[in-house]
Amino acid sequence: MKDARTIGVFDSGFGGLTVLRALVERMPQARFVFAGDTARLPYGSKSRRTVARYAAESAQFLVRAQGAESLVIACNTASALALDAIQDAVPVPVLGVIEPGAQAARAATATGDVLVMATDATVQSHAYRAACSGQGLRSLEKACPLLVPLVEEGWTEHAVTEEVVRIYLNELRGEAEAKGMLADTLVLGCTHYPLLRPVIERVIEQMPRDRSAIAMRVIDSAESTAEAAVRLFDADGRAQAGAAGAETEIRCFATDSVEKFERLGSRFLGRPVGKVELIDLGG
Amino acid sequence: MKDARTIGVFDSGFGGLTVLRALVERMPQARFVFAGDTARLPYGSKSRRTVARYAAESAQFLVRAQGAESLVIACNTASALALDAIQDAVPVPVLGVIEPGAQAARAATATGDVLVMATDATVQSHAYRAACSGQGLRSLEKACPLLVPLVEEGWTEHAVTEEVVRIYLNELRGEAEAKGMLADTLVLGCTHYPLLRPVIERVIEQMPRDRSAIAMRVIDSAESTAEAAVRLFDADGRAQAGAAGAETEIRCFATDSVEKFERLGSRFLGRPVGKVELIDLGG
Repeated sequence: MKDARTIGVFDSGFGGLTVLRALVERMPQARFVFAGDTARLPYGSKSRRTVARYAAESAQFLVRAQGAESLVIACNTASALALDAIQDAVPVPVLGVIEPGAQAARAATATGDVLVMATDATVQSHAYRAACSGQGLRSLEKACPLLVPLVEEGWTEHAVTEEVVRIYLNELRGEAEAKGMLADTLVLGCTHYPLLRPVIERVIEQMPRDRSAIAMRVIDSAESTAEAAVRLFDADGRAQAGAAGAETEIRCFATDSVEKFERLGSRFLGRPVGKVELIDLGG
Repeated sequence: MKDARTIGVFDSGFGGLTVLRALVERMPQARFVFAGDTARLPYGSKSRRTVARYAAESAQFLVRAQGAESLVIACNTASALALDAIQDAVPVPVLGVIEPGAQAARAATATGDVLVMATDATVQSHAYRAACSGQGLRSLEKACPLLVPLVEEGWTEHAVTEEVVRIYLNELRGEAEAKGMLADTLVLGCTHYPLLRPVIERVIEQMPRDRSAIAMRVIDSAESTAEAAVRLFDADGRAQAGAAGAETEIRCFATDSVEKFERLGSRFLGRPVGKVELIDLGG
């Protein structure tokens, strides 16, 4: 289809491929260009100014060099620290991952109390707390720094991972109960975590219900972001009308470390990532 | 002491503080300047050219701006990929962490077969294999990507960490036995791993002895590097003659993320790191 729109997807690494996967499922006739700034990851340890500069450079590459007509920032740190800067840097609609997660939490929760698991950097930015508060929700965020390396080790169904998830969830729920919260919704606030959704849901199932006696709903911000992208970028419904996603055109770019991207990326994307093209965005 | 020598210590992050700790114990009268290039870590995912440029910039900062008269590269990736480039960039003696680890392994082993645990990037460089081979040793390297995040989570004595160490060591020893090796020496090839030495030694103690029936010796490359530094930089024995290390002058610099450095660094250094000074090395 010559008239397929081009959607740019940006991440500091390749975790955002889970967001791309969710987008492809919903808009199979769109053309996707993904850029992972792997040479300069992790963004989480960098200052707001540095993250804004890096993310703006990648956004400009996707729009100017690759013709993206809209952008999804599939990176929690860049969404938290640099969404405004990216919107200023490019003349196309830009969607981050945090706001859609908070909106999905509002739609899911009955109690109004929400738990968030994320990386240390995302928690320190308190971006989910702010977004949840904007939706009228109380939230409690917990940094879970072992989950990304467990996913990258491929231990998505491993007993060690189940134990680590159980420890984190017990701590998080204990802290929430101590604050008098009745949390019924858990937001996965990291693009790696969709690969842990089965183990997380299994651990939740095994945990004793808290005072609320309500089952915990899991919100996957990759799914929520893809749904928001359909609403925002695809008002005319053109893309969804198309064929299955197997033929969707996807080009992936990385600023370094193409080997790891190609080796691990397919598990995140749910299909082969193919040849990842190396780009140089500078120092 | 006005005439104390100044030793520069460089790492991409703050893990190299374990090497600094070992140096301070042996040369308490020296003056130490430590630079962590935290804004641009991890080096492990970057190309040789990029690592060489970054490491050379930090080395020049330590020598030109801070007056270092010798340098310890307390970073496995920079030692593996950029030792030559650093030696070319500064007019002072430069010591990496890999060669001393291999030399200590040669001194320790009876069978000549050595196991190495390291990060993915260090293993992919095969720098320990090359250094061990240079010492006439057979070696087998294993990437243990969960160990750094477990240390940074503070789980140095946690049951999960013990289980992960057991899994990694079992896999490593199984691979070694399949190759007909009789390994009696384990090199800790990452600056974070000295904090796991107690749990690693406990796991080794609990493991059934292999065919060699020899207890496994653990070589901590931070200790080995400090011993090599004394031999290389302190031929006249001036520094060791001094007072206890508590008064040793240490200045720490980081290119970003000073908060995490200050919060976690003390555990690596074995004493408070004090105020970490922010420097800008560019890009």
